[in-house]
Amino acid sequence: MLDVCLLGTGGMMPLPKRYLTALMTRFNGSALLIDCGEGTQVTIREKGWSMHDIDVICFTHYHGDHIGGLPGLLLSMANAERTEPVTLIGPKGLEKVYRALTVIAPGLPFEVKFCELSEKEECFEINGYHITAFRVLHNVVCYGYSISIARAGKFMPEKAEENAVPMRIWSRLQKGETVTYEGVTYTPDMILGEPRKGLKVTYCTDSRPTPSITEHAKDSDLLICEGMYGDPEKQDDAVKKKHMMMQEAAQIASEAGVSELWYTHYSPSLVNPGIYIKEMKNIFKKTIAAKDRRTVELRFEEE
Amino acid sequence: MLDVCLLGTGGMMPLPKRYLTALMTRFNGSALLIDCGEGTQVTIREKGWSMHDIDVICFTHYHGDHIGGLPGLLLSMANAERTEPVTLIGPKGLEKVYRALTVIAPGLPFEVKFCELSEKEECFEINGYHITAFRVLHNVVCYGYSISIARAGKFMPEKAEENAVPMRIWSRLQKGETVTYEGVTYTPDMILGEPRKGLKVTYCTDSRPTPSITEHAKDSDLLICEGMYGDPEKQDDAVKKKHMMMQEAAQIASEAGVSELWYTHYSPSLVNPGIYIKEMKNIFKKTIAAKDRRTVELRFEEE
Repeated sequence: MLDVCLLGTGGMMPLPKRYLTALMTRFNGSALLIDCGEGTQVTIREKGWSMHDIDVICFTHYHGDHIGGLPGLLLSMANAERTEPVTLIGPKGLEKVYRALTVIAPGLPFEVKFCELSEKEECFEINGYHITAFRVLHNVVCYGYSISIARAGKFMPEKAEENAVPMRIWSRLQKGETVTYEGVTYTPDMILGEPRKGLKVTYCTDSRPTPSITEHAKDSDLLICEGMYGDPEKQDDAVKKKHMMMQEAAQIASEAGVSELWYTHYSPSLVNPGIYIKEMKNIFKKTIAAKDRRTVELRFEEE
Repeated sequence: MLDVCLLGTGGMMPLPKRYLTALMTRFNGSALLIDCGEGTQVTIREKGWSMHDIDVICFTHYHGDHIGGLPGLLLSMANAERTEPVTLIGPKGLEKVYRALTVIAPGLPFEVKFCELSEKEECFEINGYHITAFRVLHNVVCYGYSISIARAGKFMPEKAEENAVPMRIWSRLQKGETVTYEGVTYTPDMILGEPRKGLKVTYCTDSRPTPSITEHAKDSDLLICEGMYGDPEKQDDAVKKKHMMMQEAAQIASEAGVSELWYTHYSPSLVNPGIYIKEMKNIFKKTIAAKDRRTVELRFEEE
């Protein structure tokens, strides 16, 4: 099961009832965050999730509304007695930005590891999260992220027997380990069926529509995508500022064949994002104008 | 009239219904801020005051809970089309901390001026605010602030006649100008009575009790002071972390003869600061356990 919470849905500046865009997920006791604008720690508290367990923080880019809450969050994680390392992932320059911002958060009691992105696409495996960062199209270098949870094939005792796999190593193979036992090496596929459909969430803000988004969003259970404006009159603004219209996000969702689309990163000028939903559903039916702390528990398909 | 709003009352970390300690005042079209932790811009919006008019930001010190909201606030001021300079006042190192934090707020459309404090006491005159910064006692260099509004003496026509002051320069003298007219220099005191009682607000957090606070709080209309804990069992914690107990703040208010005391900078562990008020009123009667956005309009005394 993958818990997904869109902590905030605001773009540019936090508003009294709309925090800045950030995504939090929980899987198998490990939490992951994408973006961390001013106030992210407050909305995590409002949600009632634990800051202590955040093992990975991914950044799309370093505009203030996507990273301004980092020093406060780290201080609160320290206050929650975290001592395990935290991994930060983000475009080149990450460590420099981190060092600058944490001038007001000295002496953190945990190690911080940096993964600086420079390729068009980069992948990471952390605590069962398969993280793919992919370059998108903003006015500074910016990345979207796909978070996937793999699901192994079903255990097949008849296959285990066929391959003469000793019963005492079955459970380790089922967990994905390769095991050498009495001089023979056994691999998980010797007892498992074909890998089954896993879970996938894709997150993209801030960007103009660009093929890498559609490509990486493909077959996601959930696409969380910028819908900065809904009013067609704002199209020129969106192009100029390298942001995305709701219409464009719905088009991407449709082409990528995702199961559901949530809008986020609304312009502060957009008081009620919901007013455009009827129109957007004509482009992509399963579209939702998300509000702060919208949550879903994604589960593996039933057999 | 001096408008005073205690935007937040939290210490250490912002909570869902308790923003970090920050004070905002408005006088004669000019706003002043003391401290700017994460979320300060949100609480200014909740209050409905304008960020555009903030001319001065004073910092007590550079722990995250007192300055983490600065880059976001400045970005929002830029977004509100401010172009006039902003003056920052704070302990030595201010410009360095500012440069670090604003790595995520590039290209601000207004000039930022820095007043770095190094003396035990320093004074500034800005837009009618008389600002006194005074060193207090925390685990890093930290300052309290007194904000005063002076009030000139009453206009006395009989004095103007006695001193043969030409009527056409009366209004300029009343505004406090010194005027040379037809070769003679005239000063405001030639037409005004003794200066009258002005307005004074003193703000202090984070600190142990120390004589400079009592001295500078003397005769304030309002003292806003840290009351981190109310439970006497927390006294050792307060001493160790160089914070102040409510009891100690009430004692200072009593000795300084202030008109009213508001507590702020509560520990996150303190769910209901109001439970200690009855006891504190025995030390200083006009004590208030302030909540976020507590506001007062201070007015000059009636004649």
